Amino acid sequence: MTVLILTCEEDVTADMVIVHLNATGIPVVRFDPADLTGGVALSGEYVHGAFRGHLSSAGRLVSIGGLRSVWVRRPGIPAARAAEPSAWLTEEASQALYGMLRGCDARWMNHPDAARRARHKPYQLRLAQRCGLPVPATVITTFPQAAREFADRYPDLVVKPVSGAHPQDPPRAVPTSRVAPDTDFSAVAFGPTLLQRRVAKRADIRLTVVGERMLAARKAVADDADPEEVDVRFTPSASLWRATDVPPRLATAIQAYVRDAELAYGAFDFAEDADGTWWFLECNQSGQFGFVEVDTGQPIALSVAEWLARPGPERGADVKDADTTVR
Amino acid sequence: MTVLILTCEEDVTADMVIVHLNATGIPVVRFDPADLTGGVALSGEYVHGAFRGHLSSAGRLVSIGGLRSVWVRRPGIPAARAAEPSAWLTEEASQALYGMLRGCDARWMNHPDAARRARHKPYQLRLAQRCGLPVPATVITTFPQAAREFADRYPDLVVKPVSGAHPQDPPRAVPTSRVAPDTDFSAVAFGPTLLQRRVAKRADIRLTVVGERMLAARKAVADDADPEEVDVRFTPSASLWRATDVPPRLATAIQAYVRDAELAYGAFDFAEDADGTWWFLECNQSGQFGFVEVDTGQPIALSVAEWLARPGPERGADVKDADTTVR
Repeated sequence: MTVLILTCEEDVTADMVIVHLNATGIPVVRFDPADLTGGVALSGEYVHGAFRGHLSSAGRLVSIGGLRSVWVRRPGIPAARAAEPSAWLTEEASQALYGMLRGCDARWMNHPDAARRARHKPYQLRLAQRCGLPVPATVITTFPQAAREFADRYPDLVVKPVSGAHPQDPPRAVPTSRVAPDTDFSAVAFGPTLLQRRVAKRADIRLTVVGERMLAARKAVADDADPEEVDVRFTPSASLWRATDVPPRLATAIQAYVRDAELAYGAFDFAEDADGTWWFLECNQSGQFGFVEVDTGQPIALSVAEWLARPGPERGADVKDADTTVR
Repeated sequence: MTVLILTCEEDVTADMVIVHLNATGIPVVRFDPADLTGGVALSGEYVHGAFRGHLSSAGRLVSIGGLRSVWVRRPGIPAARAAEPSAWLTEEASQALYGMLRGCDARWMNHPDAARRARHKPYQLRLAQRCGLPVPATVITTFPQAAREFADRYPDLVVKPVSGAHPQDPPRAVPTSRVAPDTDFSAVAFGPTLLQRRVAKRADIRLTVVGERMLAARKAVADDADPEEVDVRFTPSASLWRATDVPPRLATAIQAYVRDAELAYGAFDFAEDADGTWWFLECNQSGQFGFVEVDTGQPIALSVAEWLARPGPERGADVKDADTTVR
């Protein structure tokens, strides 16, 4: 059975995983949905109560029923590179491709529904709380008065987007920034604003979950670090990521998180404070892992490859193919 | 506890349901997410392991924890009517609103994940097959040769969009049409095409599912009907929808469908052939029901109101609020 990888053309992270998959001899098909209906083609037939579908890319034909797993890595917008792209063609191509794949029995990393849900930061914060992860006090509000009152209670704040990257072309990550003490919050009325108590951190933690496996890495904050630089993604640093252990109680909470969120992959960011507490910042269901693997030597790409390479699941127990159709 | 209805301003279907809800005395809050951050405001706080959130519309404040149900009827695009709308503001407002609501314990009609999944027609066809519903032979393909071979086997075909409405502004439904016998299928290579064996129908069936309740209606095809007119939505007709019974074996299959699709509401369309078989055409998770209720007198709006009015659920058993946070 085949592993299907949906990602853009230049994706070294996918390359890292494919090296491991190739070593196992398991067939891999990789394409970008943006290449529908140019280099990529699809076909599915629903006849006599059964489905038979195929995908074709670069001259290779793969049966949808023969997929063991689907890795939704970093796919482009369906049909974006078609000869005559349009919103209508994108919608049709998206529904056809993902609609057929949704009906198959392959295991997903991550399933599109889980991925979409997991991107909602308010949902993340609530789920983290419920699973017992420490969450810094946070408000998301369009009420200037609520922002002001929150700032009175928690004077040392950061502000960050509620959603992820700014949807410019290409999308741009918006850095988390400190909030000045005398900030005027009246503009909060014009757009939801996320304010969070700043964790005075001594290290950043990146915890990568792949299936049941957890790989944690820690990057110490330099003693002479600029306290204005709160976002590790934008902070120049001489220190490296180092592998670290996951505290056992935290591991249980994180297992509960990914189980409830139905994630096969998740990149958790924590801020470690002076007491050693790991404060949950976010869980990025499509977070990069190459930079951690390079620094720590942790086998993340291998773990992803092993997860994708597992045998396909038994057909779902909930809804079985009916022996007979109702007439 | 309150019922939250997300819909646009002019929605007589919502009005019909609200009449029934008002009769019960259960509080109802209705707004359009397009009015974020104008008439609609939100605020949520994550402090000490707990969440407290509020929505405000037209001067009314409702606690998110106090919602018994959320009806996602026909909501506008979040913040579309803001003073200075932008893709960024829409993304932020959408994540804030739906992210907070996703973390609450209210029952959904329908949950956004279920709604999104259910809109994929290839998924619908496969699920219908698996549940034992009769599905007309169908192909979805970008291979002209596959289309030609299918047309050889099933010469009497209709073509319809893979997705739903054409995304023009306002979106436009694309009618299902017959395929002429001498059709040239070469253009299939440029976009996924859905071809389906035409059911020579003697009636259209609309089966509305509300929770566990099923309400079926039947509209006979007139003897002098134009055989070119295959799409009941676009066919002028003197005959009315009439209430009809659901065959018991079909009822079981439909229950399996909505259970697996996690839908609280679904509008199924079937074509009844000369043998009385109901052929599955589609299940629209947001299908209108007013026209059926007007013709048949079936209590669909009341059923929706009763479903929404049920007590809120027990807190989810999977992930409980932790007594203590991991430190």
